[in-house]
Amino acid sequence: MTTGPGRVTLVGAGPGAADLLTYRAWRALTRADVVVHDRLVPLEVLDDLGPDVEVVDVGKAPGHHKVPQEGINALLVEHALAGRHVVRLKGGDPFVFGRGGEEYAACAAAGVAVDVVPGVSSALAVPSLAGVPLTHRGLTTAFHVVTAHTRGDRPGRDDVLDDVAVSCVTRRAATLVILMGVSALPQVVARLRDAGADPATPVAIVERGSTPEQRVTRVELDLAAKRADELGVRAPAVIVIGDVAAEGVLEGAGVEPGAGRGAGRAGG
Amino acid sequence: MTTGPGRVTLVGAGPGAADLLTYRAWRALTRADVVVHDRLVPLEVLDDLGPDVEVVDVGKAPGHHKVPQEGINALLVEHALAGRHVVRLKGGDPFVFGRGGEEYAACAAAGVAVDVVPGVSSALAVPSLAGVPLTHRGLTTAFHVVTAHTRGDRPGRDDVLDDVAVSCVTRRAATLVILMGVSALPQVVARLRDAGADPATPVAIVERGSTPEQRVTRVELDLAAKRADELGVRAPAVIVIGDVAAEGVLEGAGVEPGAGRGAGRAGG
Repeated sequence: MTTGPGRVTLVGAGPGAADLLTYRAWRALTRADVVVHDRLVPLEVLDDLGPDVEVVDVGKAPGHHKVPQEGINALLVEHALAGRHVVRLKGGDPFVFGRGGEEYAACAAAGVAVDVVPGVSSALAVPSLAGVPLTHRGLTTAFHVVTAHTRGDRPGRDDVLDDVAVSCVTRRAATLVILMGVSALPQVVARLRDAGADPATPVAIVERGSTPEQRVTRVELDLAAKRADELGVRAPAVIVIGDVAAEGVLEGAGVEPGAGRGAGRAGG
Repeated sequence: MTTGPGRVTLVGAGPGAADLLTYRAWRALTRADVVVHDRLVPLEVLDDLGPDVEVVDVGKAPGHHKVPQEGINALLVEHALAGRHVVRLKGGDPFVFGRGGEEYAACAAAGVAVDVVPGVSSALAVPSLAGVPLTHRGLTTAFHVVTAHTRGDRPGRDDVLDDVAVSCVTRRAATLVILMGVSALPQVVARLRDAGADPATPVAIVERGSTPEQRVTRVELDLAAKRADELGVRAPAVIVIGDVAAEGVLEGAGVEPGAGRGAGRAGG
């Protein structure tokens, strides 16, 4: 048991596979008195913890809010003020859609020392592992990451995607990456089509990325919702929309940049 | 020395600190016959390689192209076809502005087996380590990542930022993250101001993120280029533009979401 002042370390656990934790994340775990973890972290990393380490599961299954955010914040502060080193183990990166900022702020407000161990973000790594490069010379040099179920967070913005996210696709300006978007996929497709997106825009849906159950579905935008329904696509999944999501972008394209689907309109 | 078919593993080395490599990346290095690395990877990870491992530095100092991309592609293929396991160690994540897609395609075209180990992307981790959350409840729920020196990659698009990237800021739609943007910062500021961006928009510039020499400069948009010049800000740096870049977003904000700078206009 630790003596002296406690602290909180917000640790990114990566997209799901245990070996995608960083060395710094592993080291933080070895020094923890308490580990507070989400549902979507690789649970096998908890097997190596010492017998005295307290493990608290605050994970939220879809539709079940086991511990509300305010309760998590309070839990972190309470343990740290009792002198413990708390590791808050979160999927992906703590500051990317993980509400880590709120946890950090709660600790800071309570005078608790807090630091951050960045993690491999699902938003980027899950496409990578599925063979979808978010940027690719000759196709796109930008990407835009959103969630599609946060309407409550955006008062006055009722669309499933805002105009800027939509224009990434309609103007071919950036690869669009959507997290937590499976249930909203029909609305996403409708929104993009209404805004004039090419019905043949490539879409890749990667379920359970980085795990042995990973499944990649590639489909054109117009058919994306129908195909996802037929295949029973389920969360967690990362949805990538844009030219980089096309089959064959990485295969057999040779060393010529821009080869493949994008060759006709890109000179890169 | 390996016998049998060679292969290439594209490995993300993360933002700069050696302990931000993933366990999977370390394991790949232990199995390498050849390591082909960039300039901006933590060189101490090469110290643990066996004496028989060939290390090739293809790094590019600014203004010096030591090995052209086509040469790197050819090198990877050549070693793999000779039966070696090649680790291509790249800064950040291989598929995020790393031209990893081109290297993957070159291997695939040559019939060389190739896989990817995702890394901690500088675009996300460097802001995290500097206390800048890319998303934060009540402030923003999206982020957009671009480079600011790739005009040659975008024929017909001469602006330092395209309209969609600009509208992330002017419409407060997403946090804008700019990689490789230090030298173009005056043009970036001018472009955003011309488009009507609030001159008080917070900007955070993080140099040498994740290393002991990390420096964070926070400044309002209008003064960003001037301040960067005065301070001698140099590459590599990640530039974050948007409400999350403000001082105090994470400090002392308590458990109330949206507290601090954004409280007046966000109900999250």
